Amino acid sequence: MIKIVIIGSGNVAQHLITAFKKADGIDLIQVFTRKKESLLHLLDSQFIIDDYSNMLEADLYIIAVSDNVINEVSTQFPFQNRLVVHTSGSISMDELSNKNRKGVFYPLQTFSKNKHVSFNEIPICLETEIEKDYQILEAVAKAISNKIYTISSKQRKAIHVSAVFVCNFVNHLYQIGNEICIENNIPFAILKPLIEETASKIESLSPIYAQTGPAKRNDSQTINTHLNFLTNENQKEIYKLLTKSIIDNGKKL
Amino acid sequence: MIKIVIIGSGNVAQHLITAFKKADGIDLIQVFTRKKESLLHLLDSQFIIDDYSNMLEADLYIIAVSDNVINEVSTQFPFQNRLVVHTSGSISMDELSNKNRKGVFYPLQTFSKNKHVSFNEIPICLETEIEKDYQILEAVAKAISNKIYTISSKQRKAIHVSAVFVCNFVNHLYQIGNEICIENNIPFAILKPLIEETASKIESLSPIYAQTGPAKRNDSQTINTHLNFLTNENQKEIYKLLTKSIIDNGKKL
Repeated sequence: MIKIVIIGSGNVAQHLITAFKKADGIDLIQVFTRKKESLLHLLDSQFIIDDYSNMLEADLYIIAVSDNVINEVSTQFPFQNRLVVHTSGSISMDELSNKNRKGVFYPLQTFSKNKHVSFNEIPICLETEIEKDYQILEAVAKAISNKIYTISSKQRKAIHVSAVFVCNFVNHLYQIGNEICIENNIPFAILKPLIEETASKIESLSPIYAQTGPAKRNDSQTINTHLNFLTNENQKEIYKLLTKSIIDNGKKL
Repeated sequence: MIKIVIIGSGNVAQHLITAFKKADGIDLIQVFTRKKESLLHLLDSQFIIDDYSNMLEADLYIIAVSDNVINEVSTQFPFQNRLVVHTSGSISMDELSNKNRKGVFYPLQTFSKNKHVSFNEIPICLETEIEKDYQILEAVAKAISNKIYTISSKQRKAIHVSAVFVCNFVNHLYQIGNEICIENNIPFAILKPLIEETASKIESLSPIYAQTGPAKRNDSQTINTHLNFLTNENQKEIYKLLTKSIIDNGKKL
């Protein structure tokens, strides 16, 4: 059994706790958090600590906290030379304190508290300083997912930037679509098959070939109709910039 | 049997031809196109015409051509007072010629030539001038889809604008994600579970509550790291504008 301690109580920590509890070969022995009450629906009180001095010896310590406190947390551990990893897409492995062995265990997915996620299909990006530690991380990752990738800190930064475009920004466009529907008494549900198809289309087509719409056709009449229709200046600006980008992009084909 | 003639040979026309061929109660009697060869994989040559004077009498004529030639096509028909509809999201019903009865049959989906689409789940937005014609369109729509909506020209315009945001612009963001992956030797496949989850998440959560990422958290350190990472000015501009929009939006919650 690989003994694990998690530090954190946010979305990623909670999803990892849920996944590890069900995983074979994994023993989640403790979770450290200052907000004990936020984990009581997942864990018995005895497994939750808020004092570093009570931390047990484990094979792996997973820091799943906000990016800006990862370094600080990594300096607090009252031990040395153990394997300590973070779960962040945007923080370099080197930001962890030098007193322990370093690694990264980055599950590439969007986590919301109220939405169940099956870990099986979540790509997990692994990085360690030394080979022996990679084997530990790989065993842990394989216990909860089928998709394991070896990814350097530099590549991980690129993935994280890409993920902002294909997930965070995409969701924001969904929200703008939703707002336009609400303003015009249209059920947002009408757009959901289109949203699903747009996402699943790129399983079989490269996005550049999957592109459709007025910008792709350089259909200036429709583009102008849409710009006249939009009254929200922010929506208009986004419409203009993305339209221009698609038109410029079409010239590359 | 409801007799139908389709005018056009593009993506929408081809997907409608495929769907009508399999549908009960529908008799696709002719397709008009100047590009006969583009339909020979779908239809026997004898069903394809390129001369309006050969057009047979039908219950419904569906104009599935580029937006900018819909009006022109509708004036060419050598008959009057028959039911003529277009399939466009952005063109008003009134742009059809007055010499025939007007309507709109707008399947709300993104069609690519090389990607099969199951019509069952595609919302079809219907509009007619008179009730009797609505019944014909409804019967045709029900023969190929489970999701029928009565949508006015004004609402349709709103839907089309929304669809540009949630489909065309979203696909463009997928492409940017793909480009960043390619530049950094990362398989784009690593992002696909995230893309699927982002799309399916809004089945159960409103997009405003599904929002995650550095802009949502107003995490200026990560935002700056990403802006420094991006070397393409266009990608940078899109990153800045959408980040600002998400931050402004968070203030509404």
